[in-house]
Amino acid sequence: MSATEAVSSLPVRVYWEDTDAGGIVYYANYLRFAERGRSEWMRERGLGQVLLRDEYGIMFVVRDCHITYRQPARLDDLLLVETEVLTVRGAKIAMRQSIRRDGQDLAVLELTLACLRLDGRPARIPPPVHALITPPSADNGF
Amino acid sequence: MSATEAVSSLPVRVYWEDTDAGGIVYYANYLRFAERGRSEWMRERGLGQVLLRDEYGIMFVVRDCHITYRQPARLDDLLLVETEVLTVRGAKIAMRQSIRRDGQDLAVLELTLACLRLDGRPARIPPPVHALITPPSADNGF
Amino acid sequence: MSATEAVSSLPVRVYWEDTDAGGIVYYANYLRFAERGRSEWMRERGLGQVLLRDEYGIMFVVRDCHITYRQPARLDDLLLVETEVLTVRGAKIAMRQSIRRDGQDLAVLELTLACLRLDGRPARIPPPVHALITPPSADNGF
Amino acid sequence: MSATEAVSSLPVRVYWEDTDAGGIVYYANYLRFAERGRSEWMRERGLGQVLLRDEYGIMFVVRDCHITYRQPARLDDLLLVETEVLTVRGAKIAMRQSIRRDGQDLAVLELTLACLRLDGRPARIPPPVHALITPPSADNGF
Repeated sequence: MSATEAVSSLPVRVYWEDTDAGGIVYYANYLRFAERGRSEWMRERGLGQVLLRDEYGIMFVVRDCHITYRQPARLDDLLLVETEVLTVRGAKIAMRQSIRRDGQDLAVLELTLACLRLDGRPARIPPPVHALITPPSADNGF
Repeated sequence: MSATEAVSSLPVRVYWEDTDAGGIVYYANYLRFAERGRSEWMRERGLGQVLLRDEYGIMFVVRDCHITYRQPARLDDLLLVETEVLTVRGAKIAMRQSIRRDGQDLAVLELTLACLRLDGRPARIPPPVHALITPPSADNGF
Repeated sequence: MSATEAVSSLPVRVYWEDTDAGGIVYYANYLRFAERGRSEWMRERGLGQVLLRDEYGIMFVVRDCHITYRQPARLDDLLLVETEVLTVRGAKIAMRQSIRRDGQDLAVLELTLACLRLDGRPARIPPPVHALITPPSADNGF
Repeated sequence: MSATEAVSSLPVRVYWEDTDAGGIVYYANYLRFAERGRSEWMRERGLGQVLLRDEYGIMFVVRDCHITYRQPARLDDLLLVETEVLTVRGAKIAMRQSIRRDGQDLAVLELTLACLRLDGRPARIPPPVHALITPPSADNGF
């Protein structure tokens, strides 16, 4: 993983579609932003979503998500989605993501992802994928 | 089609998710409401989306949509999505839909739908489906 | 609250808009379903979102949400969103919601909502609203 | 408009949120992509959405949209949203947008936008805005 940073950072612009009549970003849409961040985190490691599905026959799904909302994002804001893998164990990935503006956290997510076969059954993360997604400093108990 | 009305009417409540920072329903979301109306129109005729896919191996996709926005819908509004089939010819359905509040059109859609196999190739509408969706008074040239 | 049940139950149909290319409901969309459930919970108590905004000058925003995904929902599924208030204290509401199909939990949410003025500052829940939303059996320490 | 091209081009990646259970981009989401393209077209001319609202007291809303779907977009696709103003007359803008992949049109939109005050009433486009958005070669009859 020498060519990639442990933390991936994706810029996201806030458009009308993301806001609601309260004038701020609708609460579910931070999860859309976060998923974009995770997809780009994977892509930086050579793992596009279609490749995962078609080459490895897997997809990652969220099992558990804890999101804390600290400050609202607004129309036209330029946000950064920061994505970090904490641990990779067996069929599970623990991630931390934050959605930031001007260096300040607006929303923070802690997630557990599970690796599934395309039929929905749990799958062990294939070793080549595992090697690409494991953070270098972590003891992942693999 | 004796058991069903030619025009189907689906109530839709406007929630926060549907609005934008302008305080009104975001323009793309009328197409979501319209698709719900078309799905319920099909369901009233015994044609759920999963049944169409799994029993008949088809899905209907929009080829062409002309939408006119007349008045904005707002948070908490109770809307009616009215759906009407105009003609059914070969692999194509012409529909008209309106999204109304208190008897007034807020948005009007004219659509052409195409029948596709699941691999994306055009398919003639299966005769049992054709019989169920054809409006009774129309000369559909089948 | 004699006229209303402590737990509110809202039917939600899964449409194409809710699904993703994995064939299941996209993970952020359970939060949309949950917000519909909370809005209807409020409406059953006479508290539409527009009334809260225009009469009381408040809105409720999610501060914290923990969602666990147990089973996926699919196209055409008829779901129930069950919404329950656990406690109401000062400016905060603790809620539990579950999104169910055939009596089985698909997703479970635990949330904290905060009451805000329209300018975004925290507001104490107005007493008439407080009285309407407090569960009858709870010691809410108001 | 010497510093900007007449046609603006915005890259858009397709994420899970954009797709549906048919494995393709959901039909309403092309309108979300198109609105991002229009917002960036405006931003390239110095006209952010917040500036339009707060400095000029206006917003642009879609009055009429004709969208033709030619080929489906899929997960992980990298699309280009091309946006072009055709004419600007009084309070109306006629635009053409196409959503492309590898030089091929997937969806084509023809739209009429109206300029509104924030209270929803029609507004003449303010002359400084008019000057910035008018295509150089067009006889716009202003």
